[in-house]
Formats: sequence, structure tokens, C-alpha cells
Amino acid sequence: MSPRPRVVIVGGGFAGIHAAKGLAGLPVDVTVIDRRNHHTFQPLLYQVALAVLSPADIAQPIRYILRHQANTQVLMDEVVEVDIPARRIALASGARLDYEYLVLATGATHSYFGKDEWSTFAPGLKTIEDAIEIRRRVLLAFELAERQMVEHGWHAPLNFVVIGGGPTGVELAGAISDIAQLYMRHDFRHIDPAKSRVLLVEGSPRILGAYPPDLSAKAQASLERLGVEVQTGRHVTGIGPGWVQLNSDDGDLRLDAAVTVWAAGVQASPLGKLLGAPLDRRGCVYVSDHLNPPGLPEVFVLGDLAHLEQDGRQIPGVAQPAMQMGDYVAKALAADLSGKPRPAFRYFDKGDMATIGRMDAVARVSWPFKGHISGFPAWITWLTVHIFFLIGFRSRLSVFVAWIWNYFTFTRGARLITGNQQLPGWQNLTAEGQRQLEPGSESLTRQD
Amino acid sequence: MSPRPRVVIVGGGFAGIHAAKGLAGLPVDVTVIDRRNHHTFQPLLYQVALAVLSPADIAQPIRYILRHQANTQVLMDEVVEVDIPARRIALASGARLDYEYLVLATGATHSYFGKDEWSTFAPGLKTIEDAIEIRRRVLLAFELAERQMVEHGWHAPLNFVVIGGGPTGVELAGAISDIAQLYMRHDFRHIDPAKSRVLLVEGSPRILGAYPPDLSAKAQASLERLGVEVQTGRHVTGIGPGWVQLNSDDGDLRLDAAVTVWAAGVQASPLGKLLGAPLDRRGCVYVSDHLNPPGLPEVFVLGDLAHLEQDGRQIPGVAQPAMQMGDYVAKALAADLSGKPRPAFRYFDKGDMATIGRMDAVARVSWPFKGHISGFPAWITWLTVHIFFLIGFRSRLSVFVAWIWNYFTFTRGARLITGNQQLPGWQNLTAEGQRQLEPGSESLTRQD
Repeated sequence: MSPRPRVVIVGGGFAGIHAAKGLAGLPVDVTVIDRRNHHTFQPLLYQVALAVLSPADIAQPIRYILRHQANTQVLMDEVVEVDIPARRIALASGARLDYEYLVLATGATHSYFGKDEWSTFAPGLKTIEDAIEIRRRVLLAFELAERQMVEHGWHAPLNFVVIGGGPTGVELAGAISDIAQLYMRHDFRHIDPAKSRVLLVEGSPRILGAYPPDLSAKAQASLERLGVEVQTGRHVTGIGPGWVQLNSDDGDLRLDAAVTVWAAGVQASPLGKLLGAPLDRRGCVYVSDHLNPPGLPEVFVLGDLAHLEQDGRQIPGVAQPAMQMGDYVAKALAADLSGKPRPAFRYFDKGDMATIGRMDAVARVSWPFKGHISGFPAWITWLTVHIFFLIGFRSRLSVFVAWIWNYFTFTRGARLITGNQQLPGWQNLTAEGQRQLEPGSESLTRQD
Repeated sequence: MSPRPRVVIVGGGFAGIHAAKGLAGLPVDVTVIDRRNHHTFQPLLYQVALAVLSPADIAQPIRYILRHQANTQVLMDEVVEVDIPARRIALASGARLDYEYLVLATGATHSYFGKDEWSTFAPGLKTIEDAIEIRRRVLLAFELAERQMVEHGWHAPLNFVVIGGGPTGVELAGAISDIAQLYMRHDFRHIDPAKSRVLLVEGSPRILGAYPPDLSAKAQASLERLGVEVQTGRHVTGIGPGWVQLNSDDGDLRLDAAVTVWAAGVQASPLGKLLGAPLDRRGCVYVSDHLNPPGLPEVFVLGDLAHLEQDGRQIPGVAQPAMQMGDYVAKALAADLSGKPRPAFRYFDKGDMATIGRMDAVARVSWPFKGHISGFPAWITWLTVHIFFLIGFRSRLSVFVAWIWNYFTFTRGARLITGNQQLPGWQNLTAEGQRQLEPGSESLTRQD
């Protein structure tokens, strides 16, 4: 056994990186394991999906972030087994690692509520690859429409459907509206991107359900000013090639959809199951206020993978609590190493915010003052906070340059279609053809 | 028939973009067709492959470049048929377009000299996707070696083999050496990236065969100073999973290769064949000094797709002549429109240059003075010329920021592994296992 406690951190997101950084000064040996070589700044992923930023603007290699931390090694690998009694994990490569402390911070992924077949037609947004795929679909939809005009004199409706009215859905819908209304206005000769339709579909009665109702209403009004059609109280009952089906009072309603994006549900990483600890219905591990599963003080579960309630409310799966949970690990281990009792974790909530398009946002602020702000001041606040938190000076600087540049010039910096250059087969169908393919439902089609 | 002549330009590389821009002021209707939505600044592709720059730094949507040009439309599509007598092309989407002038500028792709099965093991570098794939393989090779050290206490040899000693091969070899020697020195705990081997293999007696012999010798000396092993006069006789085989006086020689890159041969785009005009052995179309194939004054063939000799020497397939050929199209059409004879095309050769690693280069200058330069002055010249030519201010600025930043900090801006996170199966073999897989050949392995 190593003379210094071995800490294995699984996951290089906000929680894992903060845990690793916090342990830099402690007499422990740290191993960070992630399937990917990079940490992703998830709050700005939608800007990669909508071609404002490049992937490298919001992602950094994990080993680069931790390069000067002598007590830390980074492995690109995947945990396939956790042996709690033996305090050992097994990796996909075949390696096994012993630990004195295990920190699980593998986050969450999309949930299609059991309809995994929808994922083909409605990708979610959790990784750089997801963002590149959404960017590809959105840009290809405009390319195809221009081509259809040249070939046939008409084009399939340019409807963009975002499913889920949480912060990600709101930000995506606003950003799609921006790209269509503002950023491509000189680029096409036969279509008018500004005539695209953007629909935001939310099952509950209001968007941004975790925010105070006044901010939900402001966000909806802002989206509608941008031309986004907000459909609350509607559930998705089907998604197929080129269409989305919603419930309505008159039976199911069929919408043509050139691109559909899924921002409706998340489920915890499957790693929680390997622990054998109690999970909530989304697969999150119930943890104590020391961030341990019951009876496992040597295991910490952090970030989106953890289920922790504080003041009667579940701590949300966003960046701020993930970072604070990461920071907490060092405090707990420092206490252990000096033989003191661990302090309890307490989430210090500074608020929440979501942007809506180019210069609008809503924010619930609880620190340094309490209040609700919206509009341009909220957007400036959002901008400042996000630039400040982006890891690494180089990223911050080039993100700032890209933002300022496209803010003043109405251009998009990263409008590349890479990977598969083919359109999904259904996008070659006419709107009429799509209806014939699966007949019997009303269409909301406005264009064409 | 349209009252204004219709000009169809196929290919959005240097030649196609310059042709389109040149036609902005003429009374013609221009259609630019490309399979991709973006123009790629190919001379800097190797910097994407080696993680200095992001794809969006060196690529711009074609329709964005031409957005303010009212007489021009852009289609993302592919030409599948050219009907010369009818003056009509057919596109993959099914559309047909009539033309009065056809401009073909679809460039070149890799040639494996009939051994297309090598492409799996040794990707070439012509597109953004190629660059991302090479980046992925290089970065994964280091990740795997670190993982092997943790698991087994040894790792497979970190040999990087670049096949082909032209400018692309030289630039790739220098840049791989840079990333291994300089940019990752703090990142790993178990391997020393600086102990990687970089081999540059060239079949002819010297690298940079199109340059004067003194510059070839200087380039080889510079590469060797960087630790690159230059093997001239050696032909590749086989490429497989994790190895490259070369001819030698003692029979074939087998090298372990964690990553192999192909920079040895190019062939013209297959579009030349559709013309039915005479082709050289690489598939380039023989053109007159008016850039027309024999008997087809309404067809222009430009850039890498054209075979044109001037002063007894074939004009090389690089950016400079491609741009000048593109510019020429407007001059020829302006002459036609005013009833004058077309001028002849003449390539104005300003010289050639290739960089070697971080601050070294060789250049044959023929304008504004004549001479051979090398070392730091040549590198500064290279830097200035390339920044100047990058299309679009945003690209120029952010490329400049990225370069300056990584020059002074020894960091790499875009070290992301995206797409497939799995290593090719053979990289999981041990060096021994690779030898056993295909026994009977000597190994040059130095490490391990």
C-alpha cells in the first residue's frame, strides 16, 4: 500500500476538475480518469452547436489543466467495475487501480424517457460531438433548402424544433433564432433564413420551471420577441424522420421539423449503478451532507450524479454546485488527514441565469444581492460570469475576441459542416412526401 | 437562355474562390458548387492536424466569403456528369444546370499508387476531416502510452512515421517533433513525449525535391536538429496495423509506427475524367496557355486539376498558381464580353516556402528579390505571407492570437480528441505482439 492515500477521481467535468485542483496541496496521490481527453465547459456548448464558438474555445485537455500538479496523473480510460469491499476499480483497458478514496463525478446524459429510438432524430447536447452534430444538421438544413429552390423552386419548411424548456432549450431556441434572423441574412439567394420557424416545446405549464415565475414569463416574452413560438403544456408523443408529434386537445398534432433537438430530460451516468447504493429515479446516487452514499465514507459522489437536498430543495445539476462539491472533497480529506471531523457540505447558491439570444437574459441572483434581473443587464452579467469562469486564459481571450467580433459584425465564426456531408435521408423528402410517409395528422406548416 | 452568360465554377478552393471573386464586377451569373460548405486554407491544414489551430481558424463557409457578391449563388452539391455538347452539368441532388462557361477547380486528393488499402493505416492530409483524424491519432498515441505504463509498466514505441518528403511531409514531421519535444513536456507522468521518434521517409535522394538542392540540404539539417530521422532513397513496400515496411539493401525493413501519415502522392480529382479531355498520368487535364482543354474554349481547368507547362517546367499544384489561374478567368471573360482576344495566362512565380517546426523555414524567393533564405528570417517571411493571405479578418486575427500565444507559452490550443474515442485495435498490441502478428522482418525499434 502506498504511503500516501490514493484518490481516484472519475470524471473530468466541473466537479472532478475542482476536486483534483483542490487536492493539489494535500499529501495524496491523485488519479483522474475520463473517457475523453478534454474537460468541456458545458454552459457554452450551445454556442458551439450554433457556430459562434469553436470546440477548442470551450474545451481543454484534462491533463493540460492539471499539468503542473505533481501529485496528479490523468488517464484516458473508462471505469467498468467498482469493487467496494476491495477498494479497487477496473478500467476498460484492463488495468485495475486501488484507492483509499473514490470520487465519482461522471455527470449525466440525455434521457429519452424510454424512447431511445428518438435519439436518431433529435440529438441532445452534452458533448462536443453532440454540438458538432447539431451544428451540422442546422447548417445543412439551410444548404438543402437553397438547393431545393434551385432544383424545384420550393423547399421543405425550415422548422427548427427544440424539445424541452429548461435553460438549455431556451438558450438553443434563442440562438437558432439568432443565426436564422441575423447571421445569415446575406448568404443565400433563394431562401430567406429569417422566415425559418423556431418552436420551443415544453411539457409543463411554463418554461424555465426551476426559475421564479416572473422570470419564466419574461423569458417567454423575450423568446417571442425573437420570433420563437413557445408551446407550453404540450408533450411530445412521437419523433420521426422530419417530424415531431405533440399532444393537443384535438388529438395528436404533427409538425414538420427540418431539425429537432432534444433538451428535455437527463439521466445520471450509469456509473452510479456500479456502487450498489440507493438511486433516485433518474439514477442519481443519494448522498449525505458529506457527499457520501450511505455507509461509504471513502466514496464521494459529486455534481449531476449526486442527489442531495438542502432546505427542502434538490440541488440542481448545474455547474455551480458541481464546482463547490469538487472543492468540498479537499476540505473533507484535509480533515481526515489531520484527524478532525469532516465539515458538512453546504451549497452556496449565487443564483441561476439563462441567455436568450444575442443580448437578453434572465437571472435569479442570490449573491451579492438578492433579486431578479432580465434584459441587457442580465446578459452583461451572464457574459462576465461566463468569461470569468472559462478555464484557461487562452480560451477566455479567444472566446472574448470571437464574441465581440460576431456581436458587432453579425457573423458567425465557426460555421463548418464537418464529418458526414450527407443530409439525413428524410430531409430530402418534400413536406408533402413526409406527410404521405406517415399520414393522418394535422400539420402546423406555415411556410411554403 | 439567360441574357447574361452563366458561369458555373466547380470547387471552392483557392482557384474557384479567386475565379468567383474576379467575376464579381462582370455582367455574368455565377454559380459556385462544392461538396463542402467551406473553403479550406490548405497550407495551414497541418497546423490543425497538430493541434495548433482550430478547424474554424483556417476554414470559412464559401457562401459567407461570397455573401456580398450579388451575381453569385453557392450550392453545396456534387457534379456527377458534364455534358459538353449540351453545355450542362448534372448534380448529385438531381439538379441540372446549363452554362455558357464552365470552370473546373476541384483540385487533387491522395494517391496511394494503387495501394488504397494503405489509407486505413496512413491517412493523408487534404481536408479538415483528415486533419482532425490525424490529430486524433497523434493525441491518442500519447494517451495510450501513458495508460500502458500504468497498466503494464512499458509502452509501445512512440514512433511517428511521415511518408513523403515534400513540403507537407516536412511540415508535418517538424510539427510532430514540436508537439512531442516542446508542447507536452509537463503533461504526462509516466512517459516522456520528448523520447518519441519522428521518421520522415522519402523515396527520392533528397527531400523537397522541387526546391534547389541547397535548400533541401538545409531543410534536412534543420529537421535533424529537431530530432527527426530523415530517410531518403527509401520506398515504402508495405503499411499495416502499427508498422511500416521500407526497402533496404538487406531486404525489407520493418518499423513500428504508432501513427503513420501519408504525404507521398497526389492524384487529380476524378472530375477531369468527366470532360473526356486528355489527362496526364496523375489525372490532370492538359490545358493550353488560356487554361482550356483542347478545343473547349468555354471550359477552364484551374489549379491542381490543370497540367500546364511554362518555361519547360510544370506549374506546381500549390496555392499561388491556383489563385492566379482563378484571377485569370475574369480577364478571359472580360475579353470575351468586349469582343477582344483573350490574353495568355502567365504564372508569376514569387517563390516557394516550407516551415520546419517552430521557428525555422526554407524559402526560394523569386520576387521581390531573387534568393534562397532559411532559418528564422525564412520563418518570419512564411508567417507574414500566410497571415496576410488567410481569408477574412476574423480568421487572421484569431490565428495570429493562437500563434503568438502558443509561441510564447509552449502550449497547444486545440488538443481535442473528438469523434471516435477508441484507439485503432493495433495500437493496443505490444511491440512484440505486432512483430508476432507479421513476423520475419527486422525492427528499427529504439524505445522500449
